[in-house]
Amino acid sequence: MAVNRYAKERLESLVAHLAAGMGVPANDAALFAEVLVDADLHGVSTHGVSRLNIYLQRIDARLIDPQAALTIDRRTGSTLALDAGNGLGQIQARKALDLLLPLARQNGLAAATIRNSQHFGALSWYGNYAASQKMVLMAMTNGEPAMSPEGGFEAFFGTNPIAASFPTGKGFPVKIDLATSTVARGNIIAAQKKGAPIPGGWALDRQGNPTTDASEALLGTVLTMAGHKGYALALMVELFSGALSGSAVGPDVGSMYKNMNRKQDVGHFFCLFDIAAFLDYDEYLRRVDATIDRIKAAKKRPGVEEILVPGERSARQARINGAGGIPLSGETVAELERWCARLKIPFDCPEVVC
Amino acid sequence: MAVNRYAKERLESLVAHLAAGMGVPANDAALFAEVLVDADLHGVSTHGVSRLNIYLQRIDARLIDPQAALTIDRRTGSTLALDAGNGLGQIQARKALDLLLPLARQNGLAAATIRNSQHFGALSWYGNYAASQKMVLMAMTNGEPAMSPEGGFEAFFGTNPIAASFPTGKGFPVKIDLATSTVARGNIIAAQKKGAPIPGGWALDRQGNPTTDASEALLGTVLTMAGHKGYALALMVELFSGALSGSAVGPDVGSMYKNMNRKQDVGHFFCLFDIAAFLDYDEYLRRVDATIDRIKAAKKRPGVEEILVPGERSARQARINGAGGIPLSGETVAELERWCARLKIPFDCPEVVC
Repeated sequence: MAVNRYAKERLESLVAHLAAGMGVPANDAALFAEVLVDADLHGVSTHGVSRLNIYLQRIDARLIDPQAALTIDRRTGSTLALDAGNGLGQIQARKALDLLLPLARQNGLAAATIRNSQHFGALSWYGNYAASQKMVLMAMTNGEPAMSPEGGFEAFFGTNPIAASFPTGKGFPVKIDLATSTVARGNIIAAQKKGAPIPGGWALDRQGNPTTDASEALLGTVLTMAGHKGYALALMVELFSGALSGSAVGPDVGSMYKNMNRKQDVGHFFCLFDIAAFLDYDEYLRRVDATIDRIKAAKKRPGVEEILVPGERSARQARINGAGGIPLSGETVAELERWCARLKIPFDCPEVVC
Repeated sequence: MAVNRYAKERLESLVAHLAAGMGVPANDAALFAEVLVDADLHGVSTHGVSRLNIYLQRIDARLIDPQAALTIDRRTGSTLALDAGNGLGQIQARKALDLLLPLARQNGLAAATIRNSQHFGALSWYGNYAASQKMVLMAMTNGEPAMSPEGGFEAFFGTNPIAASFPTGKGFPVKIDLATSTVARGNIIAAQKKGAPIPGGWALDRQGNPTTDASEALLGTVLTMAGHKGYALALMVELFSGALSGSAVGPDVGSMYKNMNRKQDVGHFFCLFDIAAFLDYDEYLRRVDATIDRIKAAKKRPGVEEILVPGERSARQARINGAGGIPLSGETVAELERWCARLKIPFDCPEVVC
């Protein structure tokens, strides 16, 4: 389908109005919209506004509580065990970060588990926020069953991403953000939406055979990256985000798309490090920037024009989309229009002419 | 060469005597020997007693300070920026863990950077120790240049492992411990020692071409696991262990084997989480054990007899080696004999008859 482009603020406003129309308090709806649109701004369209439809459907089906409070189950000097109250992941994750910041400033670092949550989108907003506070953020989340342990073929783990962002003096944070699968599940969903095949090596079907059919892959299992290494990392993410948080673990996590009869109960894990606890922030910046410069100046393999550092490509995309408008697929626009019609909210988000 | 088997306590005693013979204080030598032999006990012979020879050579060449103190550069309520004083990594890492434990008990978690250190061996001892204290340990270290960033072919990163261990009720901790390379550099060193070729896909030669020659691979670069994902994780490890610690970063880290004219200046990163800060320890154990049981009961791919959890294989190996003796290669035994002769220490470590 065609791709249209929209101005960031107008799109945020529209998404916030739709969320508020489904019962999300206005302030929370604005937080939520900012995170969603920020993913699209950074080119991570699989985790942005394209997910709004399912979030709203799940609120509509009373599977997400739009007014959930974030409550503290347990706290120590620098840790919080949080209960998201089955609220929207983006809102509860932002509130968790705001609770962690003063603890990390006081003791040098702080961590939170967050149980009873949902899919919380892309890292870019959280990473940029932590970086603006001169903090390093490490983040993990479990998710709906997608990958098997090495040697198995039942969907057990989510694609269990591990992420970390580091502030730099380069105008963007280093953003490490990777699913522990060979490929993010969002890419398979995108292929399915397009009716396109997926490359071999990405997934197994329900019988444990390799498949290039996106629909079969979504019913089967995604392969872990680098075999047993991805399995080990997925388990690490599952234990921090799931076992330690008190959320559902592995196959007990609900599917956002398939299980329209129960909540997801996703678990997240955040760890925030105050850079100044380890060395002077200016010295840190010099060291990180020098590392980036040296990586980019390294000898290139044949055919390689430029060596990128993680986060660089998405930061460039954010500049392009910030100037030229944020692209949305025709399908996502149609979903927005349907929700506008239902909630009697004007689709007040004109296309940007590039 | 032949493999001989030795009793754990006798081997520890011998290693400790040799280290003490080179100037390591007796208590520290015992700590050091315990970590080294523990790696062999768990089947990680690439990171155990086979490394003693080079550590002692480097002490002999005044490239490692056998009597270094561990000093605190900076501290906050739950963080320590430590200077290993160019001492042995195993000793300083153990002392760092002991400094972190009370901080983690007090505030729920604690982290340390350790600069000016060396190769610190395998995770197994540190992970078991943290688990015995009902803590989760996350550990990272940079290392001598071995891998290029994705798209490059100069050795830049070490094989930058990321590790985490989680206590269980199963008699062994879950032990996630993986180099972010396609393969641990130790395996290439082992192939080189045997004169064996390495599989394709492991490494590039000095010109950036794929190679199956172990010696060429050690002069060239090891490939990151899963391409850009391994690159991203290697950078995360480098920024935590190197940039944040104040140690050497990337290509500035000295090679243990090749640079017999300068120190390594390796950096480590430890983060210790007190499980009881997040949920009751007994509940945690139930949740982790149930996760393990469920993984092991998952449907198996054709030809797979058993699904293992990370740490299970090495725990079994430790039981076998604990009962039947710890295997050392003939080459490692010959190195031990040479050091015994030089230091006039009897090779008082009879072979175990299995």
